[in-house]
Amino acid sequence: MDLHGKNFIGGQLSAGGVTTFNATNPATGESLDPPFHLATEDDVNAALAHADQAFPVYRRIPTEQRAAFLDRIAEEILALGDVLIKRAQAETALPEARLLGERGRTIGQLKMFAELIREGSWVEATIDHALPDRKPLPRVDLRRMLIPLGPVVIFGASNFPLAFSVAGGDTASALAAGNPVIVKAHPGHPGTSELTARAIQTAAEATKMPPGVFSMLHADVPTGVKLVQHPLAKAVGFTGSLQGGRALFNIAAARPEPIPVYAEMGSINPVFVLPGAMAKNGPALAEGLMQSVTMGTGQFCTNPGLVIGVQNSGLETFVQKAGELAGKFSGTMLTHGICERFHDNLAKVRELPGVTMQGTAPVKATSQAQAAAAVLSTDAPTFLRHHELQEEIFGPVTLIVGCKSAEELETIARNMAGQLTATIHGTEQDLADHRNLIAILEQKVGRLLFNGFPTGVEVCPSMQHGGPYPATTDSRSTSVGTGAIKRFARPICYQNFPDATLPEELRDANPRKIWRLVDNQMSR
Amino acid sequence: MDLHGKNFIGGQLSAGGVTTFNATNPATGESLDPPFHLATEDDVNAALAHADQAFPVYRRIPTEQRAAFLDRIAEEILALGDVLIKRAQAETALPEARLLGERGRTIGQLKMFAELIREGSWVEATIDHALPDRKPLPRVDLRRMLIPLGPVVIFGASNFPLAFSVAGGDTASALAAGNPVIVKAHPGHPGTSELTARAIQTAAEATKMPPGVFSMLHADVPTGVKLVQHPLAKAVGFTGSLQGGRALFNIAAARPEPIPVYAEMGSINPVFVLPGAMAKNGPALAEGLMQSVTMGTGQFCTNPGLVIGVQNSGLETFVQKAGELAGKFSGTMLTHGICERFHDNLAKVRELPGVTMQGTAPVKATSQAQAAAAVLSTDAPTFLRHHELQEEIFGPVTLIVGCKSAEELETIARNMAGQLTATIHGTEQDLADHRNLIAILEQKVGRLLFNGFPTGVEVCPSMQHGGPYPATTDSRSTSVGTGAIKRFARPICYQNFPDATLPEELRDANPRKIWRLVDNQMSR
Repeated sequence: MDLHGKNFIGGQLSAGGVTTFNATNPATGESLDPPFHLATEDDVNAALAHADQAFPVYRRIPTEQRAAFLDRIAEEILALGDVLIKRAQAETALPEARLLGERGRTIGQLKMFAELIREGSWVEATIDHALPDRKPLPRVDLRRMLIPLGPVVIFGASNFPLAFSVAGGDTASALAAGNPVIVKAHPGHPGTSELTARAIQTAAEATKMPPGVFSMLHADVPTGVKLVQHPLAKAVGFTGSLQGGRALFNIAAARPEPIPVYAEMGSINPVFVLPGAMAKNGPALAEGLMQSVTMGTGQFCTNPGLVIGVQNSGLETFVQKAGELAGKFSGTMLTHGICERFHDNLAKVRELPGVTMQGTAPVKATSQAQAAAAVLSTDAPTFLRHHELQEEIFGPVTLIVGCKSAEELETIARNMAGQLTATIHGTEQDLADHRNLIAILEQKVGRLLFNGFPTGVEVCPSMQHGGPYPATTDSRSTSVGTGAIKRFARPICYQNFPDATLPEELRDANPRKIWRLVDNQMSR
Repeated sequence: MDLHGKNFIGGQLSAGGVTTFNATNPATGESLDPPFHLATEDDVNAALAHADQAFPVYRRIPTEQRAAFLDRIAEEILALGDVLIKRAQAETALPEARLLGERGRTIGQLKMFAELIREGSWVEATIDHALPDRKPLPRVDLRRMLIPLGPVVIFGASNFPLAFSVAGGDTASALAAGNPVIVKAHPGHPGTSELTARAIQTAAEATKMPPGVFSMLHADVPTGVKLVQHPLAKAVGFTGSLQGGRALFNIAAARPEPIPVYAEMGSINPVFVLPGAMAKNGPALAEGLMQSVTMGTGQFCTNPGLVIGVQNSGLETFVQKAGELAGKFSGTMLTHGICERFHDNLAKVRELPGVTMQGTAPVKATSQAQAAAAVLSTDAPTFLRHHELQEEIFGPVTLIVGCKSAEELETIARNMAGQLTATIHGTEQDLADHRNLIAILEQKVGRLLFNGFPTGVEVCPSMQHGGPYPATTDSRSTSVGTGAIKRFARPICYQNFPDATLPEELRDANPRKIWRLVDNQMSR
């Protein structure tokens, strides 16, 4: 399957832009064909205009057809077969097994949202019947449900070329809720993006969706900004750096009409190893930790970049073991730029007084994108003094902080910025001794783990992948799991409408058999 | 009951500020005792510090006690008796009957949120049990629920001195969700605010809440800004002007840690009168309209400031009738400033070429805050040409736009900014002939009414009081009804936690008997 390198604009292809770029194989440094056309401002305007035209049609397409569209996207992605996996491997250096797993997750997400909208209760239908005889005033008939927001701009992530990219979680949830989607492809994997966009395109045509339901642009930063600034854009999804996410948030907030930005950004995902657990399982925990730190060459949002323990011989053994394991791992990062930033940031941190390198491997010279795992250690005062030690270093590195006491450990927790996750390793006795720690961490994170590692995010209704700033720009939302559909929807209330003119979800007969709150009682 | 004019800072009174101001009776222009102390920056810092201290305690107080606190606030407000009503009347010129009704609503809201948290299902508890044998990977135990955000800053509204002020909807929902509250009192009714704050204070003491759970400051604009900028503030509620709300939104978005701002701002609440309805009910609709326009001297957020009809003799009669009725109404506005802006804005609009004054009453000279109702008319091209005709004029005025055709009427709908409400008056035949209009308006509003008037907002689960910008800064939220509790909460997920360490809502035995989604099935 030959790649064409063009932009997808509402069912058509565009190569209007004269500027092109090529993908690079991070493992070898070689440039990959074909050249990809950067979108122009005209492309941006056309994509948004198509999306705006498609919106009123798409949002009222019967749910079963919308679900069939999502299912079909999943099938078309699978039908790309080995071509997709091979191209993704060439562009990202992620191993085949990982990419096969990620494809499974991507397909699973699409099908999950298809099932969610088929079931239908996600719209939170709420009905209060009229009370014409109520005193002093009668009550009118009121019915409320969630409806889609409008065209959604989604920025593909570098680190999940399938599951958080063109047909990733944000695209699946936005489409499921009834919103057209415009994806800005990540420049790290433009070919993978094109292949996925083709799958969506084919699915849209096969299931007779309005053409503007989907566009995908290859875009530089100024063009990405134009997407967010466009008056017809109604929400933004982003996964990436703090700097990038905050910039988009600021741009969206400064629009004449501000729009929500769901940016998932930096997180160091602290892991607290309490004394009982350390005494019982120290070496096994060090192994589990380093497996989590090096997974995907440390390029997961939930990578545990910080470990906090109480200084004792158990912690010493733990640090030593983790350092040894770090010395055995190196891997290719997603892009040369990401790898360079990893080395720069690591160099800055390891030079701080009070920070010790406990173990790292020599980097192979075969590739510029090769990163070696690293374990650093420090004490609590040093950690609290240097704010840069709280900043995410995207890559296979973790910092272990030794505390003198449970109080010092709590102080670190209290001083922590918002996180996607925090983890407590402990015995039940540890938990009983540190009830305060749970309470502190609840205020800091989106997900709190006990005796586990934060990498590996389950896609299910009870997942919360989000957290207080700077983990995300909106702690009220999740980017993983069925709850993600809510980010691209808002409530509307119908007052006194004839039954036949109401959306099916709100009609008296409940034809969709969904769960509804009717006169304050749940029923279906 | 003598007023002291002080600020309420976490259970203590503060009169640290040397600057004072007095309330004014808008009906007479007289200054009302006592002087009120403007809060200082120290007061701001103290209020937030107390709130931050109170938060970890308050959020974990058993629900029944938190509900008892809300119920007690309601009782204490009622116990203020006539003193509260009299003071509110003196400060706002709102009639006694309206204030008694508003007190009823205020108390009702507090009790509604008490019941909501007693029932408990609002936390959206979601459980996915572990699947240790799942292939290729086991699933861990995951449990998700909503938890409070932290200290919430609430700006009292001018137009609801009870129901959207110190103990209004935002305070009730924020406290119910488990957040401490810091209210910035509206300077239009400082005495009413003090009395209400006393009621909350008494209730907090009687039910043994941590003192920092509630503070109330009299503050000028720069001090209000400091409240929003304070790093310990985690969310903001506001009801008022577009200018004010947008300014607070911008300030919150520019913080190092951005926080959500729920600002409910301007809305002109368009009313579409379709031909069938006009022919059938024209004069009665004109009466209903003017009752809605003049209610509370036009000072409701849902005041219908725009009527759109199709030009014919029916519309002519309607316009004439509305104009006549306008000539019969005048009333005292909430403050002299509000009244002055009303007259200024009205003067600007009525001078526009193509805009005709159809009726207004002479203003009585007895008071500076006296406003006469007004009905203006214009045609669609004029309306579309002048953007200022789409801006809210806060007060008893409405503009009637005559369209040449159903298409022109739809064009107006399409060009409309976001609104709290839109209304369609029609026969069933009208609705069938204008299905497009419903679809267009769904994208513009928070609440869509059929054959009614938008004033009179029911407080219930299915109410949506919000809407796309500029109606509010966050269309995903409502400020009225049980749904409002969600604005001050966010989800957290617990992974693999021992049952006993989980919040009650997530324990296997479901001790609170709440509705939960367990392994994708609703149950309690």
